[in-house]
Amino acid sequence: MSRLCIIGVGLLGSSVARAARQQGLAKTITGYDRDSANLARALELGVLDTACQTLAEAVSVADRVVLAIPVGGVAGVLAALKPDWNPATHYTDVGSTKQDLIAALHAVFGGMPPNFVPAHPIAGAEQSGVEAGKADLFIGKRVILTPCPETSAEALADIMAFWQGMGAIVACMEPLRHDEILAATSHLPHVLAFVLTDLLGRMDEQEAIFQYAAGGFRDFSRIASSDPVMWRDICVSNQARIVPLLDEYCNALMAVRNLIANGSTDELHCVFDRARSARQRFLNLFQQ
Amino acid sequence: MSRLCIIGVGLLGSSVARAARQQGLAKTITGYDRDSANLARALELGVLDTACQTLAEAVSVADRVVLAIPVGGVAGVLAALKPDWNPATHYTDVGSTKQDLIAALHAVFGGMPPNFVPAHPIAGAEQSGVEAGKADLFIGKRVILTPCPETSAEALADIMAFWQGMGAIVACMEPLRHDEILAATSHLPHVLAFVLTDLLGRMDEQEAIFQYAAGGFRDFSRIASSDPVMWRDICVSNQARIVPLLDEYCNALMAVRNLIANGSTDELHCVFDRARSARQRFLNLFQQ
Repeated sequence: MSRLCIIGVGLLGSSVARAARQQGLAKTITGYDRDSANLARALELGVLDTACQTLAEAVSVADRVVLAIPVGGVAGVLAALKPDWNPATHYTDVGSTKQDLIAALHAVFGGMPPNFVPAHPIAGAEQSGVEAGKADLFIGKRVILTPCPETSAEALADIMAFWQGMGAIVACMEPLRHDEILAATSHLPHVLAFVLTDLLGRMDEQEAIFQYAAGGFRDFSRIASSDPVMWRDICVSNQARIVPLLDEYCNALMAVRNLIANGSTDELHCVFDRARSARQRFLNLFQQ
Repeated sequence: MSRLCIIGVGLLGSSVARAARQQGLAKTITGYDRDSANLARALELGVLDTACQTLAEAVSVADRVVLAIPVGGVAGVLAALKPDWNPATHYTDVGSTKQDLIAALHAVFGGMPPNFVPAHPIAGAEQSGVEAGKADLFIGKRVILTPCPETSAEALADIMAFWQGMGAIVACMEPLRHDEILAATSHLPHVLAFVLTDLLGRMDEQEAIFQYAAGGFRDFSRIASSDPVMWRDICVSNQARIVPLLDEYCNALMAVRNLIANGSTDELHCVFDRARSARQRFLNLFQQ
C-alpha cells in the first residue's frame, strides 16, 4: 500500500500528501485538481510526483485515494469516478460533514461501497491552496472516521492506520453524531464569526472603526477568513443540524440581551462565570 | 511629575506600574487595592514601592493617579477620594466605557474635575490579577482619551504624554463616540463569545463534545475567559449602545439562518465572502 492519489490539492489535500511522504506512507503520489494552475504548482513544489489531467488517470494506479475537495463538489466527482471504480483501492476523504457524503455515495453507487471510509480531520486553517499545506498539520489532531455497516474491516483498518501514521488521534462514530457535534463545535462558531465580521465590516465602511478593534476581535474573527465556498457548502449540507442550533444560540443571546437591558447584574455574572469555567474545562482537555 | 499612584493593582494597574517604571515615568509608585492579598503580592513583586492601607494615603503624595478598577466600582472610589481631592494631581483611568465614568464624576463632584482625563487603553487580556501585568502591554496599542470641555489643557497634555511614554498610540474622541465604537469592536464580540461558550459548555456536560473542538473554537472563545465581574459592569454601563447592537446582530444572524435553511447558496457565499474581505481590511490596518 504505497501508491497514494490526492483529488483536490488544496490546504488539506496537499497536507495529506506532504505528511504521507514525510512519514513514509506513500512511495508515489499522483494527483488531480480541476484548477490546473494549482495542480501545476503542486507538481513544482514536489507535493505530487505526477499531476494527472483526468480523474480516471489519477486514481488508476492508486492503492489509497483521498478526496480533498469542498463538500459541494463530492457528488460530481464520485459520479466521474464510478466507471473506473476499483474495489481493491481504499478511499477516504476530509469533508467536514459526513451524512451528505454517505448520501452521495448511496446515490451514485446504489449503496455504500465497502472500500470507502469517510473521514474528517479536525485540523483546518483559514488559509487555502496548495502552498498552505503542512506536513505536520495532523499531528496530535483528532480525525473522526464514520464507517458504515457495509464498510470492509480491511479498508477501515488500513485507512485508520493511514491517518494514525500521519500523527492523528483517530476516533470512530456514527455519521449523524459526527454532524451534530461538529455543528456545535465548528459550524456554529464559523457562522457567528462570519456574521459579526460582515456586520462590523459594513459599519467600518461608514465610519472607520477597525482601527480601534483589538486582539479580542482579531482572534474572534480569525475563522471569518476561512474559504467562503467551503463554508457555504458545509452550511447547506449540514443545515438540518445548524439551523436549530442557530435558533438555540439566538434565544440564549436574547436572554442575555434582556439581562443587560434590565441591569440584572447577578444573573449576567452567573452566565459569564459559567462561560469562563466552561472554557477552562476545554483548555484543560488539551493540556494533558 | 514622578510620583505615581495606582488604585487597583490588577492586570491593567500593574501593567501601568511596570511600564511607567521601565520607561522612567515614575520615581516612586504607591498603590491601593481592596484585595489585601493582591496588594501584598504587588509589593513583593516590586510592582509597588509602597502598599497603602487607605485610598487617602495612596493618593496623598502622588502627582499622577491611575484608577484601574472595574467600571462598577468607580463611583464608590471617587466618593471616597473626594475629601482629599488635590486639584494639582492629574488623574486618569483605564475603564472600557467612558460616558458612565463622566456621569460618576459629575455625580460626585457636581461637574467634571479639570484634572481628570478619562482614558481607555485598548489592550486587554483574558488573564487578571497583579501577576498578569506586563511592562510592554501598551506598546503599539491604541489609548483613547475622552477629555471634556472642562478638562484643563495642562492635565490633558500631561496624561497624553504619560500614555505615549508607555508606548501607546493616543487618540482623542467624544465619550459617546468612544462608547459606540467599543460596543461594536469589543463589547459585542465578548457577549457573543460568552454566550457561545456557555451554550457549548452546557452541551458538553450532557455529552462530551469539547474534545472535538479545534483551533477555531479555541480562538473564538478566548475572550470568554475574561473577568466576569469586569464584563458584567461593562455591559450594564454601556447597555444603551450594546442592546441595539445585539438586536442588529441577531437580525443579521437570523437572515443568514434563513439563507442556510433555504439553501440559498449564492447569497450565503456573498455574505461569507464579504466577511472575509472585511477581515482582510482589518488585518491590513495593522500590517503597515
